[in-house]
Amino acid sequence: MEPRVVIIGGGFGGLRAAQALGRSGQAQVTLIDKRNHHLFQPLLYQVATASLNPSDIAVPIRQVLAHYRKVSVRMEAAVSIDLAGKVVVTDAGRHPYEYLILAAGASHSYFGHPEWEELAPGLKTVEQALEIRRRALTAFEQAEKESDPHIQARLLTFVVIGGGPTGVEMAGALAELAHAIAASDFRNINPAMPRVILLQGGDRVLPQFAPDLSAKAKAALERKGVEVRLDKLAKDITPEGVRLDDAFIPAANVIWAAGVKPAAINKGLGVPLDREGRVIVGPDMSLPGHPDAFVIGDQAHFDTPTGPLPGLAPVAMQQGVHVAANILREIDGKARKHFKYLDKGTMAVIGRSFAVTDFHGIRIGGYFAWLMWLFVHIMYLVGHRNRIIVLINWAWSYLTFKRGARLITSKGWKENEPVPAPKPATAPVTASA
Amino acid sequence: MEPRVVIIGGGFGGLRAAQALGRSGQAQVTLIDKRNHHLFQPLLYQVATASLNPSDIAVPIRQVLAHYRKVSVRMEAAVSIDLAGKVVVTDAGRHPYEYLILAAGASHSYFGHPEWEELAPGLKTVEQALEIRRRALTAFEQAEKESDPHIQARLLTFVVIGGGPTGVEMAGALAELAHAIAASDFRNINPAMPRVILLQGGDRVLPQFAPDLSAKAKAALERKGVEVRLDKLAKDITPEGVRLDDAFIPAANVIWAAGVKPAAINKGLGVPLDREGRVIVGPDMSLPGHPDAFVIGDQAHFDTPTGPLPGLAPVAMQQGVHVAANILREIDGKARKHFKYLDKGTMAVIGRSFAVTDFHGIRIGGYFAWLMWLFVHIMYLVGHRNRIIVLINWAWSYLTFKRGARLITSKGWKENEPVPAPKPATAPVTASA
Repeated sequence: MEPRVVIIGGGFGGLRAAQALGRSGQAQVTLIDKRNHHLFQPLLYQVATASLNPSDIAVPIRQVLAHYRKVSVRMEAAVSIDLAGKVVVTDAGRHPYEYLILAAGASHSYFGHPEWEELAPGLKTVEQALEIRRRALTAFEQAEKESDPHIQARLLTFVVIGGGPTGVEMAGALAELAHAIAASDFRNINPAMPRVILLQGGDRVLPQFAPDLSAKAKAALERKGVEVRLDKLAKDITPEGVRLDDAFIPAANVIWAAGVKPAAINKGLGVPLDREGRVIVGPDMSLPGHPDAFVIGDQAHFDTPTGPLPGLAPVAMQQGVHVAANILREIDGKARKHFKYLDKGTMAVIGRSFAVTDFHGIRIGGYFAWLMWLFVHIMYLVGHRNRIIVLINWAWSYLTFKRGARLITSKGWKENEPVPAPKPATAPVTASA
Repeated sequence: MEPRVVIIGGGFGGLRAAQALGRSGQAQVTLIDKRNHHLFQPLLYQVATASLNPSDIAVPIRQVLAHYRKVSVRMEAAVSIDLAGKVVVTDAGRHPYEYLILAAGASHSYFGHPEWEELAPGLKTVEQALEIRRRALTAFEQAEKESDPHIQARLLTFVVIGGGPTGVEMAGALAELAHAIAASDFRNINPAMPRVILLQGGDRVLPQFAPDLSAKAKAALERKGVEVRLDKLAKDITPEGVRLDDAFIPAANVIWAAGVKPAAINKGLGVPLDREGRVIVGPDMSLPGHPDAFVIGDQAHFDTPTGPLPGLAPVAMQQGVHVAANILREIDGKARKHFKYLDKGTMAVIGRSFAVTDFHGIRIGGYFAWLMWLFVHIMYLVGHRNRIIVLINWAWSYLTFKRGARLITSKGWKENEPVPAPKPATAPVTASA
């Protein structure tokens, strides 16, 4: 009898594990995800800034796994895990297992201010990216018909909170979007008016990188017109803007790229967590005392001599492959191996034609790094069609400065609710026609 | 002083008029639309059936018109029109005009049953298409984890109400989607189970076409597995299904393709309307008694010896161009010309490789008609990028039977509301794992 393997989460780690196990044909695999799609999160900021469509970077999980007859996919939400009884309970039923792979990822942490979420969407899901896009494009439409320059300025001010890779990439792309469309498509907007402000709590952007790359990234952002403010923490976010220690920035658009927290399911496991809430795993990624349960990716704390591994896609992918290989070894009666991360370097991109990469101390910032970034991201996109479409979309945007996906769609779909919701929080808008 | 022309609606008619006037540089044009995008509605059913992305068939209105410096675009909702005072009032202000072009289109008519809208979305907007897609794909996900075959059958039954071009195209594409993904991607769904039922009130589908083409279309639908039921009217729609005179069809997915009504703004104009609510216009598309106000497209009733012109894209486009030309003639001190419709034929497509076309009595049904359909629709898509992307998406779907855009996205975007809403109306779902 083949062992039943339950995988929770269809992100980078869970999907790789399912593919490796599916290919072997030696296990009955059930992959559980509350969404029907695998998402290439590193490019999500390009959906938010209207360069890419959601389906360019997302693919149905069951389509990716359709070839593996012993893999089934369930669109369900995991509710709890009974480690002793070896059962996963979801909103639709119970899934007993011989092996469990927890790969549920992470979500945003608003540092004890959950009320900020409404005002400052983050960038983890397709829905969030579309919400950011909707708000940004709607702000431009409102500014076009606004005659009060103060309200116009507020509508056209974008604050990105957090100076890690997501914040840097988002700020760079936003600045390009804002300046490109303000100049070409609007009649009543001064092209110099849109502002993009990047707030970073620490003393440099991209603290994961070497200081010289941080400096290059900051300079590249500033060349694109982004105002980079270091050592600045958001004290409060209101519908009017962002409050700092020493100032208030009136802004209609705030984007959260500051903190993440691992999936909530960790808390119910009854195993030791680290300070961030990640599960501390053993050298084979298994839970202490539960060798049949593995935790991988953003949910896991895997110790190395230089500290725990960061929450990056390559880490999750390698862990997914490794755990699947260990399960297969055990099925064949062989011993497990310890996990070892192969560092392939880190990258961040700042708009068109500029990126920074750090590969084992080889640090590059500029156009060549951007080409490398492009190559790596296209290669890792799941599904051949997506690669072609993304390439064309990028080539198109690059050559024309146009954005392919600049649609404002509303949440409701009925006849009587077609107009998008966001309104300026201040004085009523009057047309100048 | 150049005359001010206000255009309401950025559909086929309004956009063509704005382009023609913009090109001339002889008028100050303001185009008002409550959405930011022009939508290629004839392909909307392909968004609903996950073949295309919204932005493949929609383009920002202001991007299309960006070159014309004397054209400005306002994302506002028209509230009322003062024909005597020559002012359009919107939710954001007042727009005085010398010429008015009303091109606000049509929406769905539920024949006195507005409560059916929630249960049976139509196909007029991007949001509606995404809602249909969300419901259809979610129904499959629920069927996969359902063990009761009756509930499974209900989840996998799709009823399309209305046998005109939209209903026929939708039913054909749905049947292909259902059978393709049921066979390949699911483990717990019998590929023979999904049903697509097309209800038509009259005695043949595509009543706009000649009877022999209707017969060919019906046969083509049936070859694709669509159950075509003629002379059947929906008496009631409930969360459980669709009630006919003589039967009840349990169905979780109902799509409305039956009736349209012109934009509500017609009622407030104080001018004669036809029985459907369309404005009866003169030979130059102007309002009787208001030569400076034109009504075009689905909003207008334009009489011909064979009855009023139908609500088709070519009619609206030709009228938009014609009205713009008349305004320019008048600016140059010349007399207006009467509108004359140049019939370019009608087409409808039934899934992969089959279409019917009627061009001045030359009637074709089959593969060649489908190639014609493909050519015409690609040619009329606005924006070069869209043409390339749509071609690739189609080629990809055609060669692989895969659907590029099979994403289920939810309406809410916050962390605590990520799972799509629809639930089976009957017994709770239990997993069989």
